[in-house]
Amino acid sequence: MAQAGLPVAVDAMGGDDAPTTIVSGVNRAADDYGIPVLLVGRPDEIGAVSDMVTIREAAEVITMDDEPGSSVRRKKDASMVRAAEAVRDGEASALVGAGNTGATMASALLRMGRIKGVGRPGIAIPIPVPSRGTPTVMLDAGANAECTPEMLVQFAQMGVVYSQQRFGIENPQVGVLSIGEEPTKGNTLVKEANGLLAQGSWSNVSGGRFLGNVEGRDLMHPVVDVVVTDGFTGNVVLKTLEGGMQAAEYALCRALEADVGSAEVLDVVNPVLEPVWNEILDPESRGGAMLLGVKGLCVICHGSASERAIANAIRSADELARAGMVDRMAAAIAG
Amino acid sequence: MAQAGLPVAVDAMGGDDAPTTIVSGVNRAADDYGIPVLLVGRPDEIGAVSDMVTIREAAEVITMDDEPGSSVRRKKDASMVRAAEAVRDGEASALVGAGNTGATMASALLRMGRIKGVGRPGIAIPIPVPSRGTPTVMLDAGANAECTPEMLVQFAQMGVVYSQQRFGIENPQVGVLSIGEEPTKGNTLVKEANGLLAQGSWSNVSGGRFLGNVEGRDLMHPVVDVVVTDGFTGNVVLKTLEGGMQAAEYALCRALEADVGSAEVLDVVNPVLEPVWNEILDPESRGGAMLLGVKGLCVICHGSASERAIANAIRSADELARAGMVDRMAAAIAG
Repeated sequence: MAQAGLPVAVDAMGGDDAPTTIVSGVNRAADDYGIPVLLVGRPDEIGAVSDMVTIREAAEVITMDDEPGSSVRRKKDASMVRAAEAVRDGEASALVGAGNTGATMASALLRMGRIKGVGRPGIAIPIPVPSRGTPTVMLDAGANAECTPEMLVQFAQMGVVYSQQRFGIENPQVGVLSIGEEPTKGNTLVKEANGLLAQGSWSNVSGGRFLGNVEGRDLMHPVVDVVVTDGFTGNVVLKTLEGGMQAAEYALCRALEADVGSAEVLDVVNPVLEPVWNEILDPESRGGAMLLGVKGLCVICHGSASERAIANAIRSADELARAGMVDRMAAAIAG
Repeated sequence: MAQAGLPVAVDAMGGDDAPTTIVSGVNRAADDYGIPVLLVGRPDEIGAVSDMVTIREAAEVITMDDEPGSSVRRKKDASMVRAAEAVRDGEASALVGAGNTGATMASALLRMGRIKGVGRPGIAIPIPVPSRGTPTVMLDAGANAECTPEMLVQFAQMGVVYSQQRFGIENPQVGVLSIGEEPTKGNTLVKEANGLLAQGSWSNVSGGRFLGNVEGRDLMHPVVDVVVTDGFTGNVVLKTLEGGMQAAEYALCRALEADVGSAEVLDVVNPVLEPVWNEILDPESRGGAMLLGVKGLCVICHGSASERAIANAIRSADELARAGMVDRMAAAIAG
């Protein structure tokens, strides 16, 4: 059991079947990993919790249909807003939520504020690389539909620190997502970002090495550790992979069921394939998406995150808080 | 055997091991499908061909390393340039090539010219939808790194005609690739394109119905028939899917080999899974990417296209030529 530090603040009320799965995940993180949790929401709905979990009452809930920015301003007593305030006020080390993604980001941004010098925070997501132990960190996965080249440079700095702290990569290799390896390939944004990153001074404090453009096919292969892109492209890529993997699973399972014609064979094969699909389909089993660039840690889980995914997200948030990731990121940006 | 019409012009010299696989594919199209082919390249390298294949000499070859635009202008006797000229001159019904993609497109564009009113041609690619018989047509898959909203509207018109002619979809459903279903979600390009497409008048001649924004996860699922996007996003998506499927295949095969521990089971399972992977990994088994918007048919195959893929590309080009697809597209654009 780790030495107890500040608790991780968790939004109890966000997620497809909140608070049920959230509470299970919180209890698991507390019991299995010894992490104290500040669980924010409606006490009567939360029910029983582990000894290491403190419940903080928040009367309001931001739903999936709420407009992110205005709901955070309007629902001042919403669970995710109060959880973000706990981080701001030094009562918690990190915010973990599985509710409305935009509103969770807005809560973090509006309550914690940005790291000095950061233009816009970005969402970092680990993309599994089956032939390598560590995933590729891609950002921005959807916080900013439109980006400037300078934002992509900051994403590189923050992505490098994240890759170091979270996955132990000492000197992460960085690529810009484009449509050809040559620096002349791509749209204006990518070409300008490539030029800025090629100068190298961005990595003086963060470390990391710029490899140039990478392509979509490199994301799940052992090519680079950090891929920077605008939030439109990143979000399309992320959802394309999710949908593609689900379609592949469907096609393969249907073929096996239709053409193998032997229940004994399926009984052997399915238990082997299932964990692989879970690993590939659910990159968040590794700990969720993270909003980088705010003054505090903010982990955003899928609405459908499992108890295990919630527990893992809390654990990785706790580890990154102990490692002082936000301070390291601030130093990298200040450069 | 189909009634013989104009031959399909094929670039013999483009492709990873050209002309070997190209010639095999051409002979297969001629022998199995009865399609006459005009095979353009170096006769001494081409070797023996079927009776229905005519060889036309072209002394030069544009390689994968050649810069597309300038090489087409410089190498006037290149095989792909001569093949495009055969279409322009009414000697062939279509151009099929597996060489340098940019140069094949440039040959088609510079020699055949654009359909009247078309701003920029786009590459259409069929993306497999395992739970539906027909693929999703996505365009632009890489011809234009930067697009205007008006270009996306023309892609919708051309994609609809292609979906009708190639896959028999009477009234194709069209979506704009974005990062949320609401028309307010996405970047400026997508929001403006959504506005233009929602007006509906674009489909007066082509047919087709605009459904609104779709997301990356919808591409391989039975949601829409045609997805329009800029060539940067489309190319990233296409390569992300290619790389993702390869990574999934690697992970699943490794798990099967390591954990099933029974050669008998693998002997049953692998032959079932292999064709599924081929179908998913290689959308071009269905006939290649197509450049839409030029005054003639232009099918672009992967450099690694198999004999079967080449033969299929020739067959689908022949079918679309007979169906008068270019004229229908011109009518849709003139609208």
